Amino acid sequence: MTTDRLVTRRHKLVQSLRKAGVAALLVTNPKNVTYLTGFTGEDSYLLIGPNLLRIFSDSRFETQLQDECPEIPAEIRTSRTTMIEFLVREIPQFKLSAVGIEASSMTVAIRDALAEKLSPVELVSQTGLIEELRQIKDASEIEELRMAVRQAESGYALMKSLLVPEMTERQAAHELEHGMRRFGALKAAFEPIIAVGDHSALPHYRAGLRHFDESPFVLCDWGAVSPKGYHSDLTRVWATGKVPPKLHRIYGVVLNAQQAAMATIRPGAKCQDVDAVARKVIDQAGYSKYFGHGLGHGIGLDIHEGPRLSPISTDELIPGMVVTVEPGIYLPGVGGVRIEDDVLVTRDGYEVLTSVSRELEGVIS
Amino acid sequence: MTTDRLVTRRHKLVQSLRKAGVAALLVTNPKNVTYLTGFTGEDSYLLIGPNLLRIFSDSRFETQLQDECPEIPAEIRTSRTTMIEFLVREIPQFKLSAVGIEASSMTVAIRDALAEKLSPVELVSQTGLIEELRQIKDASEIEELRMAVRQAESGYALMKSLLVPEMTERQAAHELEHGMRRFGALKAAFEPIIAVGDHSALPHYRAGLRHFDESPFVLCDWGAVSPKGYHSDLTRVWATGKVPPKLHRIYGVVLNAQQAAMATIRPGAKCQDVDAVARKVIDQAGYSKYFGHGLGHGIGLDIHEGPRLSPISTDELIPGMVVTVEPGIYLPGVGGVRIEDDVLVTRDGYEVLTSVSRELEGVIS
Repeated sequence: MTTDRLVTRRHKLVQSLRKAGVAALLVTNPKNVTYLTGFTGEDSYLLIGPNLLRIFSDSRFETQLQDECPEIPAEIRTSRTTMIEFLVREIPQFKLSAVGIEASSMTVAIRDALAEKLSPVELVSQTGLIEELRQIKDASEIEELRMAVRQAESGYALMKSLLVPEMTERQAAHELEHGMRRFGALKAAFEPIIAVGDHSALPHYRAGLRHFDESPFVLCDWGAVSPKGYHSDLTRVWATGKVPPKLHRIYGVVLNAQQAAMATIRPGAKCQDVDAVARKVIDQAGYSKYFGHGLGHGIGLDIHEGPRLSPISTDELIPGMVVTVEPGIYLPGVGGVRIEDDVLVTRDGYEVLTSVSRELEGVIS
Repeated sequence: MTTDRLVTRRHKLVQSLRKAGVAALLVTNPKNVTYLTGFTGEDSYLLIGPNLLRIFSDSRFETQLQDECPEIPAEIRTSRTTMIEFLVREIPQFKLSAVGIEASSMTVAIRDALAEKLSPVELVSQTGLIEELRQIKDASEIEELRMAVRQAESGYALMKSLLVPEMTERQAAHELEHGMRRFGALKAAFEPIIAVGDHSALPHYRAGLRHFDESPFVLCDWGAVSPKGYHSDLTRVWATGKVPPKLHRIYGVVLNAQQAAMATIRPGAKCQDVDAVARKVIDQAGYSKYFGHGLGHGIGLDIHEGPRLSPISTDELIPGMVVTVEPGIYLPGVGGVRIEDDVLVTRDGYEVLTSVSRELEGVIS
């Protein structure tokens, strides 16, 4: 990642701060620190404002800060000083009357300790300032997302080649994570959902002790984390035997819903409307009450970020956004189908980043 | 886990609440919810007080709550109601003038939203009430910790059998996690630290792209998470070639420091004093400035919990505590040695739960 991109991100944030009337923001969410600085270590906070840029860290990270963000002045504490004590000593030099804090990630205990000791500097709760910028990916981020997709797809192919009927959902999940890592992923984007038979109808299921030979189909929802921390997110359903006609039917409906929704993705489209297109296909097939979640979400440094594709979303698509498109139908006691791909909003439409087949294909034949 | 144990835990918490003058506590830290209820799902809060016990969850978890904690009354929200809205509607029925919150894990945004809408019910910040109980493990927790140790040790032996000189630190870390899972672990307790050569002198190092044949020694710090979520934590140093005399020397010092400190573990011992015993051995060998961290920490549902073994700790050992004992000496640019074992405080002394050899043994010969 070039420094230019980081400078652009910080510049945009400073503009947002001006708009919000915040003189400086104390960035404490580690992913937001990484986004603005390129620094990938932990326990380090960034103070940023117009003409103000300072990272607060400790001696463990001195070398790494020099390597990853040499242009950002760093204040280094020793292990004898807590981060709170350090901030209380350092922040007053900037003569700020108020400092914004990231209220969605800072704990009450840290805020209260800081507020008491920093007084009269006022702490002002802020939410979503950096998360809003993160919705639109720059070229380097899109490259990382492409890599996260490739790693997920390569690991998935490897895992499928290792399946035997005796294997449990959990064993397959472990092979899947190990497989993605063999292709360079840091780890799984989340604990993979591998759901045999009617487990697939439970949207919160993970991977348990059911064996593949206990049912003729499997739902698999997985993703990889790329070396720089970007997440991919896919779902496929496989046939491991003779799939019941009811499942075949909902598979076709879900695939149609997905394809119809994707076709409406373009700059300016309302996320609510994209969701509605998929929902209508499912409604018309008579399954409206079996699609209980939103159509999709942004992916990036987090597995779930903005924008949201859902009936109550007020977001609008902008080039550079990357979203999942994942309609589903879940029939309790029977089984569920979800088909999920990752889609980039381009200047004149969209590009599907994922390429694994959307056929209801047989594995373990 | 029997319901009896859970009842005992909740009873102790209610006693702590009385002492702290808190009428009820809203438990939001998921590990604390698990500790008090046995429920292993997410996004669910427990409200507990004398004669008050209620879990707030959503429809995804209805079946799981019935399975895992049928004795606890559950209030289930639909996806149309946010957790905040739900709490604001439900909590007033209990006629509380104040509710304790877990300030070390609740975010400022959630607290502020709740405080505003629940008024006049007051939210009172509490810290450490449940964490203090969690320091002392009951028999079922000790069994889980033993299992986490076995899984870590079995996976470690498997990983070592797979090593070749061309392998990178990161590849070995992935084999290690996969190995622990083969023996039933849910996952690694943390991203394993595998540090070839002088990387071992960097206490924050993880596992990167250095190959085993680039140096004659390796530091490995790893652990497993047992099926019910308990963490083990070990560190060993291996020889992969002719180890330099300086490293041999510090290895002997660290091992002596560890054994001397362990020998003083018993009920009533001050954690500060146990730390001091190890520190003295290292000081007398002339390496005091190269042991920059505390001697150890509790392990359990978290990888780091109380008590702390350190120069500034005010904790005292009690039977049922399980702590790491992990002195280290880190020579910048040369290499570091840390030896870490997991130790249970018994009624009359201690039991070392870990059993992997503490010899500086050769691998990849």
